[in-house]
Amino acid sequence: MKELNERIDNIGFGDLKLIQNPSEFCYGVDAVLLADFAASIKLEGKVNAIDLGTNTGIVPLILSHKTDWKLTGVEVQKGAYEMALRNVELNALRDRLNFVNSDIKDLNLDKATFDVVTSNPPYMIGGSGVTSDNSPKMIARHETTADLEDFIRVSSELLKPKGHLFMVHRPSRMVDIFYYSRKYNLEPKEIKLVAPKEGEPANILLVHMIRGAGKELAILPNLFVYNADGSYTDELLKAYEKRR
Amino acid sequence: MKELNERIDNIGFGDLKLIQNPSEFCYGVDAVLLADFAASIKLEGKVNAIDLGTNTGIVPLILSHKTDWKLTGVEVQKGAYEMALRNVELNALRDRLNFVNSDIKDLNLDKATFDVVTSNPPYMIGGSGVTSDNSPKMIARHETTADLEDFIRVSSELLKPKGHLFMVHRPSRMVDIFYYSRKYNLEPKEIKLVAPKEGEPANILLVHMIRGAGKELAILPNLFVYNADGSYTDELLKAYEKRR
Repeated sequence: MKELNERIDNIGFGDLKLIQNPSEFCYGVDAVLLADFAASIKLEGKVNAIDLGTNTGIVPLILSHKTDWKLTGVEVQKGAYEMALRNVELNALRDRLNFVNSDIKDLNLDKATFDVVTSNPPYMIGGSGVTSDNSPKMIARHETTADLEDFIRVSSELLKPKGHLFMVHRPSRMVDIFYYSRKYNLEPKEIKLVAPKEGEPANILLVHMIRGAGKELAILPNLFVYNADGSYTDELLKAYEKRR
Repeated sequence: MKELNERIDNIGFGDLKLIQNPSEFCYGVDAVLLADFAASIKLEGKVNAIDLGTNTGIVPLILSHKTDWKLTGVEVQKGAYEMALRNVELNALRDRLNFVNSDIKDLNLDKATFDVVTSNPPYMIGGSGVTSDNSPKMIARHETTADLEDFIRVSSELLKPKGHLFMVHRPSRMVDIFYYSRKYNLEPKEIKLVAPKEGEPANILLVHMIRGAGKELAILPNLFVYNADGSYTDELLKAYEKRR
């Protein structure tokens, strides 16, 4: 019966298609902005990138369109992981993109081997008040299996020296992100705040950290999703463009 | 001869006047915004406030106009401290405002007795490359006697539980500020970024921390100093208004 809830979307990145199940978890603009933010850096040679908490694989899928990086995605939930595998088949990306079904804390991967980590971790703190609910949607949104500190610690372990972590989260967690980043030798170098419209509070935070970098943060100009008339801004639409 | 460089300015807060020496150090818009940011909170009863690194006392002087708080200022430099004392006389504020000539690390004040700490610490890291220069301007701008961690640690010690620290600094030091705040049990609750004009990068960061508060940061709307035509924005001009 589950199959009936699935749909295949053409998601605006060339011919890229995505299977997802709206009753479980659908990707949002944060995943698109995260992929675009990561793809904006210039890296020489072969790039080895990994996405932690990838769900159905949306961030590596978009990165496969925007970059020529070798891509891995890690997802703890069996159902989402299987959908990610089917997304690879659907888009014929077997040679560039692979997925691992694992809790990020139990990863059996060589340390200090990745140039780039991306992550859109669960936004909600802990599982308090919702522990009776073990639905895929709940696990995708809450820190049930791994928390923010785990995501940052594991990212630091996986990255080469001077490797890059790109994370999307809520602005209200910025202090946590900065604190744990420095604790695990990942220095925040750039942030970008995203608000629905100009004059409205930011509800998305993009952070670029570098392992072992010097201490100096740049605040990038805010990004707005919608114009005053409700149409998408040019900057948001640019996140859908191919970079190279 | 030094007297010749001094001037007395009417600074736009009622009848408040300020003696300063342009060849040493003059206050800027950051001090005005810091005072206004601090004065914006609602506090019941008698409020005991202290300004760390007060120079000629501009922040407590503005706060004397905007609030009915009891105010103390701490300044390590003898010359600036003496000018602060003369500013108290000039404005007949002896009953509400006093100054202490001390390194903030050597303060002989009771701990956990202040409701509010304000601070506009030196912006430049360390004294490297400039150690041969011991001018008042240089000490006001560089972390020669106390660094950012000292300012945050001492603020935390001076504050009552749930007391407020308001700090102005450069956006590039935001990670340091958040890291040390959490280290010393001061939780950043609000930040406000200030840019010269819309579309330009922020160059001033205002942070409001509360001792022992819960973890959740709010990003306040950006403030711009100038309109496109070069005139001051309404929001900047509001920082000159009396709050109560």
